[in-house]
Amino acid sequence: MKTDIEISQSAELKNISEIASSLNISDDQMDPYGKYKSKINLPFAGSKNGKLILVTSINPTAAGEGKTTLTIGLGDAFHRINKSVAIALREPSLGPVMGIKGGATGGGYAQVAPMEDINLFFTGDFPAIAEAHDTLSALIDNHIHHGNKLNIDPRTITWKRVVDINDRELRNVIVGLGGRTSGVPREDGFDITVASEIMAVLCLSEDLDDLKEKLGKILIGYNYDRQPVTVSDLGVTGALALLLKDAIKPNLVQTLEHTPAFIHGGPFANIAHGCNSILATKAAIQHADYAITEAGFGADLGGEKFLDITSEKLGKRPDAIVIVATVRALKLNGGVNKNDLDQENVDALLKGAKNLGRHIANMKQYNKPVVVAVNEFTSDTEKEINALNDYIKEQGVKPFNTTVWENGGAGAIELAEELVDVCDNNQEFKPLYNNDDDFMDKLNAIVTKIYGGNGVVLSNKAKTQLKKLVKNGWDKLPICVAKTQYSFTDNAKELGAPVDFSINVSDIQPKLGAGFIVVLTGKILTMPGLPSHPAALDMDIDNDGKITGLF
Amino acid sequence: MKTDIEISQSAELKNISEIASSLNISDDQMDPYGKYKSKINLPFAGSKNGKLILVTSINPTAAGEGKTTLTIGLGDAFHRINKSVAIALREPSLGPVMGIKGGATGGGYAQVAPMEDINLFFTGDFPAIAEAHDTLSALIDNHIHHGNKLNIDPRTITWKRVVDINDRELRNVIVGLGGRTSGVPREDGFDITVASEIMAVLCLSEDLDDLKEKLGKILIGYNYDRQPVTVSDLGVTGALALLLKDAIKPNLVQTLEHTPAFIHGGPFANIAHGCNSILATKAAIQHADYAITEAGFGADLGGEKFLDITSEKLGKRPDAIVIVATVRALKLNGGVNKNDLDQENVDALLKGAKNLGRHIANMKQYNKPVVVAVNEFTSDTEKEINALNDYIKEQGVKPFNTTVWENGGAGAIELAEELVDVCDNNQEFKPLYNNDDDFMDKLNAIVTKIYGGNGVVLSNKAKTQLKKLVKNGWDKLPICVAKTQYSFTDNAKELGAPVDFSINVSDIQPKLGAGFIVVLTGKILTMPGLPSHPAALDMDIDNDGKITGLF
Repeated sequence: MKTDIEISQSAELKNISEIASSLNISDDQMDPYGKYKSKINLPFAGSKNGKLILVTSINPTAAGEGKTTLTIGLGDAFHRINKSVAIALREPSLGPVMGIKGGATGGGYAQVAPMEDINLFFTGDFPAIAEAHDTLSALIDNHIHHGNKLNIDPRTITWKRVVDINDRELRNVIVGLGGRTSGVPREDGFDITVASEIMAVLCLSEDLDDLKEKLGKILIGYNYDRQPVTVSDLGVTGALALLLKDAIKPNLVQTLEHTPAFIHGGPFANIAHGCNSILATKAAIQHADYAITEAGFGADLGGEKFLDITSEKLGKRPDAIVIVATVRALKLNGGVNKNDLDQENVDALLKGAKNLGRHIANMKQYNKPVVVAVNEFTSDTEKEINALNDYIKEQGVKPFNTTVWENGGAGAIELAEELVDVCDNNQEFKPLYNNDDDFMDKLNAIVTKIYGGNGVVLSNKAKTQLKKLVKNGWDKLPICVAKTQYSFTDNAKELGAPVDFSINVSDIQPKLGAGFIVVLTGKILTMPGLPSHPAALDMDIDNDGKITGLF
Repeated sequence: MKTDIEISQSAELKNISEIASSLNISDDQMDPYGKYKSKINLPFAGSKNGKLILVTSINPTAAGEGKTTLTIGLGDAFHRINKSVAIALREPSLGPVMGIKGGATGGGYAQVAPMEDINLFFTGDFPAIAEAHDTLSALIDNHIHHGNKLNIDPRTITWKRVVDINDRELRNVIVGLGGRTSGVPREDGFDITVASEIMAVLCLSEDLDDLKEKLGKILIGYNYDRQPVTVSDLGVTGALALLLKDAIKPNLVQTLEHTPAFIHGGPFANIAHGCNSILATKAAIQHADYAITEAGFGADLGGEKFLDITSEKLGKRPDAIVIVATVRALKLNGGVNKNDLDQENVDALLKGAKNLGRHIANMKQYNKPVVVAVNEFTSDTEKEINALNDYIKEQGVKPFNTTVWENGGAGAIELAEELVDVCDNNQEFKPLYNNDDDFMDKLNAIVTKIYGGNGVVLSNKAKTQLKKLVKNGWDKLPICVAKTQYSFTDNAKELGAPVDFSINVSDIQPKLGAGFIVVLTGKILTMPGLPSHPAALDMDIDNDGKITGLF
């Protein structure tokens, strides 16, 4: 069996200007990076108003759900039935690529290409975001070092540093040691680049002016009078925007079947909103009749945030929602050990399917058509597939069995045809909450209507933060919950569809640039670590450019 | 008067494939990044053996010498006299761009373009180098965290982390705090990316195989038995090479007069060798009749290192050497205050000219033709220019007055014509030392023959390091001195041509990947800081992409 990188490197790609041309994007609208990648210039020339399909999923598990793979294969299916279509995806983070994942560009015959470039720096967006982020850090410390005109209290600085590496060693550090010429000693820490607020800001910006407005609002800490200090106060908004001048432009690539794919941005789906950039999805909507966009993690995190935060800022609500599930992941949710997933187990499957059931019910609340894609694995048995399909029908939605990993677009034709039908609806989108609602009402809406919990318990720290939020008038922003992706609860081990639980809020962080309030629940790591055998150990490239170890 | 960015943004550039075509580089040999930048694929198709001209300078001063500007203008002059020519330059480091410099792509009408891209990330080489560097750091700490099979002594790790930012706050840090899940606490520090050994390694590599061999040899520290630990021991050579797969390819751009310029790599000229990559200079040599390459800092640092380290590894010695000097910088060397440089002062000029005199004598030792380019400023008086020209002639070399900032290539025609003449020589290159010489003999050769000092004083630490060097058989590598760029001595304030001094060696560091031994003299900062008013404060970009504050 061929590996992903072998399939990808043996694919015959079209020149990217040909792909762009299929969307009526002309050469002067684009800046190619090599033959198969291109930046698309702003403002877009396209003026379509395509249908928008959101792809989300059950809670992710170690078994893998193939949400990205399904999104890509679904795009190829639309392409095969001769619909004008474009996909919108997030860019992979390099840290996990070197750690566990080895790659994040789909799999099998449903991949975006060139995968070795997309997985490694791509067009330089993440390095630019990290550079802007860390330049801001340096400018903050430099300001303090040179007299601290703004009277910043170094103990209150909330702006940490970032690298796009899984580096636990940098989670908690002390900086500024070495005497009076080497800065002011203080506690600090590094997050992974995708957790940067600048990542979130870039992904929610419509153009450079909008980007600058958002960057200027970023809160970096407080002064000794406990008043907020922002990027605008430091006077460096323009420099940060300048560093992001190319990163803000969405990237166009193609699938192995030559379906256009905009891949841009990649905010964390827990402490940020977890969707590809507004400009990527907008590029898809404006240049194709069908735009397929993917949200990170499960429907409780990336899905909810796309529906309540991103799609509002995008000015376009989805016309249909696809939930991706697999037999294996649901069996794992039903209590099966990871090593026993190859064995048929209908009971465990149906037990775990309640996880899917809750996500279905959740998504239906938004009053848009919902369908389920059952992403098949070779180990799935007919009995299991039938049982799962029956369960899904009982929830009042249609199941579609897809085989895109093995068959590319041919593996999702029926799903695509169904989506063409259901996208043609006039159902009015119902948001989960209104931004003007009381802060705790908004939070309770998410916890009770999406997670299925009883309510919220605030830590003392969170209570203080909430008072500060209200005092500063920041409580009318939407809420972005940082929660484990593995469970509806704040405990990663509670799989399936747990009931009778509360969500414990440890901290509340205003992200004024991004325009949302992050509510931290349980223990959220914003800097992952590497495993004992990182994927990096198995990577290589020979003198002719042949790559191994990316998958 | 137009600013550099205004001149650059109003220039009409040719498509980069047209520039490449002028060097007989075909489209399938290149990977364009936008319309005006391109990676050139390996191996090169060109098979010329062009003449090589090295541009170096007097000791840099706060007055500015315009070495890069002269190099660019000289290339344009060759172009104007219809010679096949290509320039090879280093890539600017973003840290200084945001700090003091604001840009490093020439000036006035002698610029490489698009300057806003070259100064900001360019084609992503430096981010890739930083990512490879810091991924190695994470892999080292991860190895220790997960059991430390190699028995690495964390107190002996010599591999610091890097960012491409002037961030003094990160010079000395403590990492790994936060308990047993967040690494092992230890002292660490950050250098600027251009100080990374991976930068030096990349710039000295001929292809991916050579790169991997060098990467594998990098020394990262010692085990508890005091034995060296290398990248190869960690088993991550392939992953690092994979991260550098595009960064290793040289970049092609053009000057405002459409002269081809290969801009690639940018190692520090003190703790590294300070020249653009071997592949950039080789690309120029193999595709043009005349290749003009620039070395960093003065002829005592970048110049000496190009001649004794880089050109040996390049397999090609320069056919002629140009030393750039300015009246203003020499007056500053002669004791004039920076604010008084506009006033005529022939006495101070002639006093400071001894700095140039020593560089001329030094360069002549290599037995290749030497000429001096006097880069004129509008404040220079006729009397000063005449006095300086006379002084240069007294040193036995020809002066050429150039005005490339104001006039582009037209400002260096005579210099170009002279170089065409003198490049046609058969003089045999004389190296300063042989690598097989005794280590202290090599070091003394540099100190006495180039710096004009009496000898070397080793610190106790350096003495211990030297013993270790000999014991491990590393003493037969060439020497790369880390010294202040402002003086022949190890004291930045000793301008002109000081005599009767010794060089104090504080530390000796084996750079086994790069293949040289760094000898640290005086106080060398490998992480700069930002000034009280960083250039970043004045930078901006509007919604149409118009940039201000880059210069």
